[in-house]
Amino acid sequence: MTWLTRRHAFSASHRLHRDRLNPEANGRVFGKCNQAHGHGHNYVLEVTVAGEPDPQSGVLVSPAAIDACVREAVLARLDHTHLNDLPEFTAQTPTTENLAIQIGRRIAGSWRATGRVRLAKLRLEETGSNAVELDLHGHEGND
Amino acid sequence: MTWLTRRHAFSASHRLHRDRLNPEANGRVFGKCNQAHGHGHNYVLEVTVAGEPDPQSGVLVSPAAIDACVREAVLARLDHTHLNDLPEFTAQTPTTENLAIQIGRRIAGSWRATGRVRLAKLRLEETGSNAVELDLHGHEGND
Amino acid sequence: MTWLTRRHAFSASHRLHRDRLNPEANGRVFGKCNQAHGHGHNYVLEVTVAGEPDPQSGVLVSPAAIDACVREAVLARLDHTHLNDLPEFTAQTPTTENLAIQIGRRIAGSWRATGRVRLAKLRLEETGSNAVELDLHGHEGND
Amino acid sequence: MTWLTRRHAFSASHRLHRDRLNPEANGRVFGKCNQAHGHGHNYVLEVTVAGEPDPQSGVLVSPAAIDACVREAVLARLDHTHLNDLPEFTAQTPTTENLAIQIGRRIAGSWRATGRVRLAKLRLEETGSNAVELDLHGHEGND
Amino acid sequence: MTWLTRRHAFSASHRLHRDRLNPEANGRVFGKCNQAHGHGHNYVLEVTVAGEPDPQSGVLVSPAAIDACVREAVLARLDHTHLNDLPEFTAQTPTTENLAIQIGRRIAGSWRATGRVRLAKLRLEETGSNAVELDLHGHEGND
Amino acid sequence: MTWLTRRHAFSASHRLHRDRLNPEANGRVFGKCNQAHGHGHNYVLEVTVAGEPDPQSGVLVSPAAIDACVREAVLARLDHTHLNDLPEFTAQTPTTENLAIQIGRRIAGSWRATGRVRLAKLRLEETGSNAVELDLHGHEGND
Repeated sequence: MTWLTRRHAFSASHRLHRDRLNPEANGRVFGKCNQAHGHGHNYVLEVTVAGEPDPQSGVLVSPAAIDACVREAVLARLDHTHLNDLPEFTAQTPTTENLAIQIGRRIAGSWRATGRVRLAKLRLEETGSNAVELDLHGHEGND
Repeated sequence: MTWLTRRHAFSASHRLHRDRLNPEANGRVFGKCNQAHGHGHNYVLEVTVAGEPDPQSGVLVSPAAIDACVREAVLARLDHTHLNDLPEFTAQTPTTENLAIQIGRRIAGSWRATGRVRLAKLRLEETGSNAVELDLHGHEGND
Repeated sequence: MTWLTRRHAFSASHRLHRDRLNPEANGRVFGKCNQAHGHGHNYVLEVTVAGEPDPQSGVLVSPAAIDACVREAVLARLDHTHLNDLPEFTAQTPTTENLAIQIGRRIAGSWRATGRVRLAKLRLEETGSNAVELDLHGHEGND
Repeated sequence: MTWLTRRHAFSASHRLHRDRLNPEANGRVFGKCNQAHGHGHNYVLEVTVAGEPDPQSGVLVSPAAIDACVREAVLARLDHTHLNDLPEFTAQTPTTENLAIQIGRRIAGSWRATGRVRLAKLRLEETGSNAVELDLHGHEGND
Repeated sequence: MTWLTRRHAFSASHRLHRDRLNPEANGRVFGKCNQAHGHGHNYVLEVTVAGEPDPQSGVLVSPAAIDACVREAVLARLDHTHLNDLPEFTAQTPTTENLAIQIGRRIAGSWRATGRVRLAKLRLEETGSNAVELDLHGHEGND
Repeated sequence: MTWLTRRHAFSASHRLHRDRLNPEANGRVFGKCNQAHGHGHNYVLEVTVAGEPDPQSGVLVSPAAIDACVREAVLARLDHTHLNDLPEFTAQTPTTENLAIQIGRRIAGSWRATGRVRLAKLRLEETGSNAVELDLHGHEGND
């Protein structure tokens, strides 16, 4: 088994807040991430696929194919935005965990599964000291 | 001459926009950084002081003294905020250049100049591919 | 399954040495790491927990909860110390492997297991070219 | 179970090209990596072994033993070379995937398996945004 | 005075060799960098401009303007190439120093000098342990 | 003018302490760096030389020449040591500032000045957030 990982970066802002909670409870749960107009990050996204390289070309999958998928499904939608403005974050808080899950869904939805290569995992780094990972295996086509 | 540099990080969001310009002009000048609710970054700030180490302690200045100045003058004010909300960015756009200049002013204003050690420069990294540097020499006490 | 990783750093010194071995044998086993008064490193510690994010808050576990555990169980004990001085390294040599195991025990001992989130793994980087990883699953409460 | 990872770097050039394909097809499959005289990279190689540390020395395996294996099996052969010149890349294209597989074979071939420690995995980073990983478990002695 | 730095990366291969020298002399001067078909690197290029930010926009110069200059003058010419193939390296050896000088000339040649902003310096990193810097001040328009 | 920088790393431990001060005063001046048996760091050292590249070879100075100087004058002496054991740190405290000054002296003392190339500066990074720089110009031969 061979894994190939591509890394991309994007910048976005968010506010961690739940409408159902009162200000005190929001402050207790989300701390300084609850401040009124949000703050932001340079996110680093790694997408990993797994499979067996094609015996003729020696290529698992073209890096350009992963990049195109990430650009279309993730960067075009999230880069230079305020995440709370997106419909998927109307009901859900854009925590790193939820952001990773939404990114995983979009990538799985636009990834064309093949017999030879499958999505394996996703890693989303919010800062140099905070990162979330998800297992993407089996999620293709389940958007 | 010896230089000592301390590095700190903070997260903030901003929107590059000028009220005087119409939407088309704002888009032309600021591109995707003009999007309505902003986006954000993990900023990295380096503050450098210069002078001669104390011959007895072998110390130019206590790192804790620089850190206290940066925490009070910069981090407590900017970390986890939306920069456009700050009074200094009501009239000015929070570009990296203006942000660096404002940070330089605050550090210079709270730095206690001594004969032996002076502020030398400031470097503000917005992303891994974009950074601004300022010469701080002579700015102490000129806030 | 979602993984969340927090990264912390600390500085410490150590000497790799076993009292039972004679100087020649110590030199053969530990090389330059056996030099008499030790040497030191900037260690980087990553602690990873796993589980399902809370569907309401979208949070797996508060980063502050992991940080408090790491600060109390690891940093307060190891940062800016000579590791050979600690009781756990009287009988054991503070190799990177043993240091990681001791850190794993302390974190597992102070981690409050919940049904939803468990400790997953620990990574300890001694230098940019040397790192040790441990599986922490099932070690909670086994200190 | 404990994992120990060592990191090494080397510089090499390659051209992605298959003799059987005509120029148009080569361009379509390999893009700019097909340019006539190649281009190059600073490769970063991580080799991970797994096992239980020796209870007496607290050492899984001497870092020097892994380093000697990597230097002999990989660096002496690949550093500062044009990869297409090597016999293993006469029939195969030196893609990152194939290069990782060849490196894995050479490391497995020169690694002296012991009951306590085994090769676990290999990670080869071609650039900051492209990396390949291989599972090496069970490959020792199968060169 | 304010400095703005933009960072770009490209991959290329080269061979350090002088036709006038015999093989022994080439080996003595260039060591393993003289091997017959070359080797390669992931180069990192930083271009710094200096001046006073525009008081209205708060911008020294649009990052997009520097990026366009670097893409046209440098990346389109050098990325994914074998440097010895370029006309500027027929008579000159593509050492890091010469490569930096050639890049500096091309950037200076395509940079439109303005009264407010000038080219300041260029930094070219060949590997994590080797970098060259050039002062670009006064070189605009002197290609 | 062209600058060439080489980067090296070494690991060492130290204790910040002055015999003349009582325990309270040592604690006040040096904080946790005063703990009894010290602590340690992975130091990163950058040495920069300046001059004009040789017009024939295109080389400012052979990287191997700088590396040999750094290995002999610095690494052989400091790597994997407890800095307080060295004679130069009997009377002086091994602060980052003093360590940089001592390294600068040793490099200047073993550097063979030539008309074309001179030592320019030295940067010593103690941790990712603390670094000292020295101007070395004019110090050659003044050990």
